[in-house]
Amino acid sequence: MKGLVVVAHGSRRAESNEEIRALTRKLADGAGEHYRHVECAFLELAEPSIPDGLRNAISAGATEIVVLPYFLSAGRHVVTDIPEEVEKVREESPSVTIIIAPYLGAAESLGDLLLDHARQP
Amino acid sequence: MKGLVVVAHGSRRAESNEEIRALTRKLADGAGEHYRHVECAFLELAEPSIPDGLRNAISAGATEIVVLPYFLSAGRHVVTDIPEEVEKVREESPSVTIIIAPYLGAAESLGDLLLDHARQP
Repeated sequence: MKGLVVVAHGSRRAESNEEIRALTRKLADGAGEHYRHVECAFLELAEPSIPDGLRNAISAGATEIVVLPYFLSAGRHVVTDIPEEVEKVREESPSVTIIIAPYLGAAESLGDLLLDHARQP
Repeated sequence: MKGLVVVAHGSRRAESNEEIRALTRKLADGAGEHYRHVECAFLELAEPSIPDGLRNAISAGATEIVVLPYFLSAGRHVVTDIPEEVEKVREESPSVTIIIAPYLGAAESLGDLLLDHARQP
């Protein structure tokens, strides 16, 4: 069973974390049968942590998990911190496949989305 | 003549700023005739500043400018800081129309993009 965990930075501003949770619900609705469990997790300042988010997905039955870094640039968080957090759960649950997708800022179609978005009234 | 100014936070990491510049070149290529001038600007830590980016667009002949905040959440930068910077140039150049588009994180199609992106190999 496939799971998707959207990883955001986390904010002291509750509304920012709530935005991520709302986006995650939207992804869950859109994912249909492709991802049976969709969850968000935060690097810091909000819950669940990345390991806890992954553990939630595994408890729900996920055996293949895609981690999607909701970040715009490939800074230390993307390059080092997220992989380190993910590694903890890989060691705990070696039978689960966990793939870290490229961060959002690297998405091929982001340019097209921005142009469309800029044209909205 | 329409211009587009992508506004990012700016980073101490030169590669992150370069990512924005590369994205901006991609947008310029994709914009075709719709935006005749596409530029990036930074809230802090990199150049050009938001007012300078807008001034560059105006110098190039833009009379209608869309400012696109390349931010994932509606924190203080999006709500307060970017509008304040834009206002400086509105006062300088009242004949130019400057519209601030919703920030990237509010883009309607971001959920679909994320799902597609997560499915890439």
